[in-house]
Amino acid sequence: METLRWAEQAPGIWKATIGTPEGLDPLSLLGIPPRRQALEAMGAAPFPLDQATIAAEVNPRRTVICLPLTPDEHIYGLGLQFMRLNHRGRTRYLRVNSDPRQDTGETHAPVPFYLSSDGYGVLVNTARIVTIYCGSTLRRQDPVEIKDRNTDPNWQATPRSELVEIVVPAAGAEVYVLAGPTLLDVVRRYNLLCGGGALPPRWGLGFWHRVPLPFTDEEAIQEAREFRQRGFPCDVIGLEPGWHSHSYPSTYEWSPERFPKPAEFVERMAQDGFRINLWEHAWVHPSARIYPRLEPFSGSHTVWGGLAPDYTLEEAQAVLKEQHDADHLSIGVSGYKLDECDGSELTGASWMFPAHATFPSGHDGEQLRQVYGLLLQKMTTDMFRRRNRRTYGLVRATTTGASSFPSVLYSDLYDHRQFVRALCNASFSGLLWTPEIRGARSAEEWVRRMQAVCFSPLAMLNAWSDRTKPWSYPEVEHIIKKYLQLRMRLMPYFYSAFARYHHDGTPPFRAMALEIAKHPTPAGLESLDADDQYMAGDSLLVAPLFAEELMREVFLPAGIWYDFETGERFEGDRKVRVSPGLDRIPVFARDGAIIPMMPPLDHAPQPGEQVPLEVRYYGTAPGQFRLYDDDGETYAYERGDYRWWTLEARVGADGQPQVAVTRPEEGWASSYADIRWRFMTTG
Amino acid sequence: METLRWAEQAPGIWKATIGTPEGLDPLSLLGIPPRRQALEAMGAAPFPLDQATIAAEVNPRRTVICLPLTPDEHIYGLGLQFMRLNHRGRTRYLRVNSDPRQDTGETHAPVPFYLSSDGYGVLVNTARIVTIYCGSTLRRQDPVEIKDRNTDPNWQATPRSELVEIVVPAAGAEVYVLAGPTLLDVVRRYNLLCGGGALPPRWGLGFWHRVPLPFTDEEAIQEAREFRQRGFPCDVIGLEPGWHSHSYPSTYEWSPERFPKPAEFVERMAQDGFRINLWEHAWVHPSARIYPRLEPFSGSHTVWGGLAPDYTLEEAQAVLKEQHDADHLSIGVSGYKLDECDGSELTGASWMFPAHATFPSGHDGEQLRQVYGLLLQKMTTDMFRRRNRRTYGLVRATTTGASSFPSVLYSDLYDHRQFVRALCNASFSGLLWTPEIRGARSAEEWVRRMQAVCFSPLAMLNAWSDRTKPWSYPEVEHIIKKYLQLRMRLMPYFYSAFARYHHDGTPPFRAMALEIAKHPTPAGLESLDADDQYMAGDSLLVAPLFAEELMREVFLPAGIWYDFETGERFEGDRKVRVSPGLDRIPVFARDGAIIPMMPPLDHAPQPGEQVPLEVRYYGTAPGQFRLYDDDGETYAYERGDYRWWTLEARVGADGQPQVAVTRPEEGWASSYADIRWRFMTTG
Repeated sequence: METLRWAEQAPGIWKATIGTPEGLDPLSLLGIPPRRQALEAMGAAPFPLDQATIAAEVNPRRTVICLPLTPDEHIYGLGLQFMRLNHRGRTRYLRVNSDPRQDTGETHAPVPFYLSSDGYGVLVNTARIVTIYCGSTLRRQDPVEIKDRNTDPNWQATPRSELVEIVVPAAGAEVYVLAGPTLLDVVRRYNLLCGGGALPPRWGLGFWHRVPLPFTDEEAIQEAREFRQRGFPCDVIGLEPGWHSHSYPSTYEWSPERFPKPAEFVERMAQDGFRINLWEHAWVHPSARIYPRLEPFSGSHTVWGGLAPDYTLEEAQAVLKEQHDADHLSIGVSGYKLDECDGSELTGASWMFPAHATFPSGHDGEQLRQVYGLLLQKMTTDMFRRRNRRTYGLVRATTTGASSFPSVLYSDLYDHRQFVRALCNASFSGLLWTPEIRGARSAEEWVRRMQAVCFSPLAMLNAWSDRTKPWSYPEVEHIIKKYLQLRMRLMPYFYSAFARYHHDGTPPFRAMALEIAKHPTPAGLESLDADDQYMAGDSLLVAPLFAEELMREVFLPAGIWYDFETGERFEGDRKVRVSPGLDRIPVFARDGAIIPMMPPLDHAPQPGEQVPLEVRYYGTAPGQFRLYDDDGETYAYERGDYRWWTLEARVGADGQPQVAVTRPEEGWASSYADIRWRFMTTG
Repeated sequence: METLRWAEQAPGIWKATIGTPEGLDPLSLLGIPPRRQALEAMGAAPFPLDQATIAAEVNPRRTVICLPLTPDEHIYGLGLQFMRLNHRGRTRYLRVNSDPRQDTGETHAPVPFYLSSDGYGVLVNTARIVTIYCGSTLRRQDPVEIKDRNTDPNWQATPRSELVEIVVPAAGAEVYVLAGPTLLDVVRRYNLLCGGGALPPRWGLGFWHRVPLPFTDEEAIQEAREFRQRGFPCDVIGLEPGWHSHSYPSTYEWSPERFPKPAEFVERMAQDGFRINLWEHAWVHPSARIYPRLEPFSGSHTVWGGLAPDYTLEEAQAVLKEQHDADHLSIGVSGYKLDECDGSELTGASWMFPAHATFPSGHDGEQLRQVYGLLLQKMTTDMFRRRNRRTYGLVRATTTGASSFPSVLYSDLYDHRQFVRALCNASFSGLLWTPEIRGARSAEEWVRRMQAVCFSPLAMLNAWSDRTKPWSYPEVEHIIKKYLQLRMRLMPYFYSAFARYHHDGTPPFRAMALEIAKHPTPAGLESLDADDQYMAGDSLLVAPLFAEELMREVFLPAGIWYDFETGERFEGDRKVRVSPGLDRIPVFARDGAIIPMMPPLDHAPQPGEQVPLEVRYYGTAPGQFRLYDDDGETYAYERGDYRWWTLEARVGADGQPQVAVTRPEEGWASSYADIRWRFMTTG
């Protein structure tokens, strides 16, 4: 074992190279530079560990990196994990797998990046399957307390050590250490290293609805119109495999039977205020026009008989981009749902190409599988960027470095608690996640799932198989409408949260562990592990209820909190019990919260369209909100064409609220018209 | 890809070497020569595949071997599989894992050896984790029928190919092909290649009882005596961790508190006719006398803080053998239960040393883990062989080549159907398995489990935790006693079946697929997959009932079959329905079956002791039974000191049964005295 040489890459980010890393790694694939200016603004930080305690060894088969742990340290992150928040004591096998049914670390989106409750992070930049032993191995020289199983009732089958071991199955790897001091700082540095968080178009934050698989153009149009007729907001209609002339595998060409006039279809939907999102997967049907052009750039194995293109090659990328641009983007398609890029290992009957598949680039199936989702994200983002149009969509697998890509993870798994836990966990790793709603066993569950998805990066009903609609349970239709409308009303608030994600790396939805300062007391550590509540933006704490639950406990961090709807006051730094009834999801606003809200339009405002704001103020602490404003659809913001409004409120000595608004300069095309304040807890 | 060069090793067994195989492989570890004479007796057979269709490629990371499949071919074997018999269409990841909860191929005892219903076998001799894709990958050049998911209701998520791909994560491997023509021939060749099947001492086939973990010597003696007082047969008392001065990890030294006088304890038990079996695991406690001597020969990582000795080294083996011989064998201990040599991956919190652990031999944790159980089996067998005493015991993990080792697999998993399936599957891979009974949710389940375990390689009640006894359910005590006594009565029959295992490789308990000739019709293929019935010896078909089942279907192969107890007649080549009530497990004797049975002694006969035989004859077909006879305890049989009796029966022209017995020569010390025939279905 040898200690490593660390080179500072940016303030608070160090890199060490061990052995000879392979020629394929996620950070290089991105082709996106770190956001240096924002990293500089975070300021310098000391190396967060004793460098003498970090060591590594390499042999032709694997690279092993050892790092220390303190006794009470918790370990977070590692991608879109469904089973737990704190991985201390566990071994995580970070393979891409669409069916993680056991607590192994496998998931759609594993990321070999862990965050410590001691306030630092460790990232491995590799396309290989990394295994991280989070205090689950015992080296001979390390102290261990041995208990006698014969006589000691506290004997445990799973030992705990003060050692992290990271294993990369290759003769070299790049490792990064990221400083805090807080866990949120670690995440921000990570996101900025990866190019900053994604900024979706404004319409991406509206409501989404995916129609059933075999629908025709007319059926899709009818289903969309019903949203307007019933007064349910909706911005995006998603088409499932049936729009392809053949799938699975896919042609990427419109079905002449079901979608004979695609340009006209997209245009008619646009007139009603709907964007079109297209399902696809990466496996190319023999009848696809691009098949012969992709054949020389594809792997040894097929998926469902379709080509698996080697998209690490520019040539392969170019073929797909050109076809997609001509057939989809040119007629106004708004984005994609990139399905089936993970591969299931549930029953030992994976449809994915195997790890030993070979590809023209020289990379193998293990590597390609780990980064396939990331490559698809990059290609689609590139296509839309070239047209100066933002996109927002879905992807079922990704890995390290995905922060800047505007696509949201989703899953065939459907446990509601796991969905909420994944929402918490995604925030540690630069990932976005939708706990999409598909169906429910009861009206109650329907409401509970819908409430939670409206407080997530992408609010979607995925009716591809269940053929559900927001009004499928008439007895709760009014509650569903209330939440779809609330989603629309919160658009200015959520859009500003995403702008912070892009500009300073702060995740818009995030685990409680990212709200709490470094080195909490051991008692406080427990609250870091909360996996059924999360922050939505900077000021709202969301604590979903689950079906068959009438009451729940919520951990409120230190300070005063207010019920988002009623303004009821709660003391923080403790757990509180709430039982708000079916028509409400528990949401708390922190003292001083300022929440800008717009009217419940049936779809997002167009560029240049101005909407009025209702701005809510909670409590008495001085509050400030930075309201983000830009055209909402193009990349003009990258050239500086955006503004931050400042909304401020406080309660004066007379007990009366005082407010102040700083607007963009005259002549800049703002999205917001007049502002009306609403004081939720005073006056 | 290159075709391979095959060299015939013995009749019907060919080997090819690909690349540079690593210096650790199971067949070399065994140190046991193939049983050449028995292999020669099987005769020559043609290479069972077209050699041009078998190809391989090697790179520094892995070896890939491709073999063809026919459309209807079924794939069996691959070790102690719990989830299915036929692996066609599945990917099997053959890692040692004590908690295989998903259908991945992981198990306590994976064996990279598959048998085809087309009548051949393929074996990879490596200590690495092999992945076998049994028709679950699609190569680009291979034909595949693509279905349109949009319109075809027969679309399936998991494709099927006509290709096996074997992946060894090393730059070389040895591959064997074994000829049939029948599946049983393939298994026999495999077992003979590995030195022949295990021949346990006769007492090993009696009943076993493991006492609770914290028992003292006096408590164990009292519990054993209760068997005698109540008239329940029992040959072996097993001690669990509490006999060690410390565990976990283990000292292998007797606890001065619980077992202050071990020699006296073993002797007192022996006087009552009980053998002592000792639980242990391989991880050495710091307080163990042998710890300092093993320290230089141990791995980088500990297990529960105990040393993980590198038992690929003779020096490490010698230390353990010497201590065990002095402390255990010298006072009469009869064998071991070798626990915890697998490692669980269920929750990502394995207590096992990791794959990247390093060992003084230069082998790594992946290799050592795969063969650890095999090494322990070999060491214990060697120890007893040196004292010219046979042993019989338990082991929780093993792999390729274990056929000749007298230890039986067991598991913490406890699904009864899986237990029976494992009994079927074990027979394909030279493994023995006990569906041990521990507890039950009802008297009915207690009976059903007890009935099945009495028709298995090792009939054991493992009360280490549940503190159960055979009479724990008084309302069914008489049924339990009937089956424990039946187990004793069948000892001559089962002992002869094991002798065939040793001498000609025929597994004593085996899957139905081994009863059916090569190339069954496609309709017949389905019956090969039966996973809830099996053959016990050559003449009995066992079809366990499971709790809450009053009736079941049994597939009877072609011919006439008779109920073992009643003699009721059944036509074979079909499924029959039976509902025999709780006091009977469905067991069928084939037409012409000859079943030698002895009195229900309370423990096995001593060497030199003679017992009378009742020989049952079923049906009317001419039958012959080869009754094995030796001293039952030593290795004298290896020097030729054994005899085969011949028992023959037929029904003459007059409808009367005629019998013939060929005995050993005068003067040879036979185990059997007078023979009484019982004609179950005639006269």
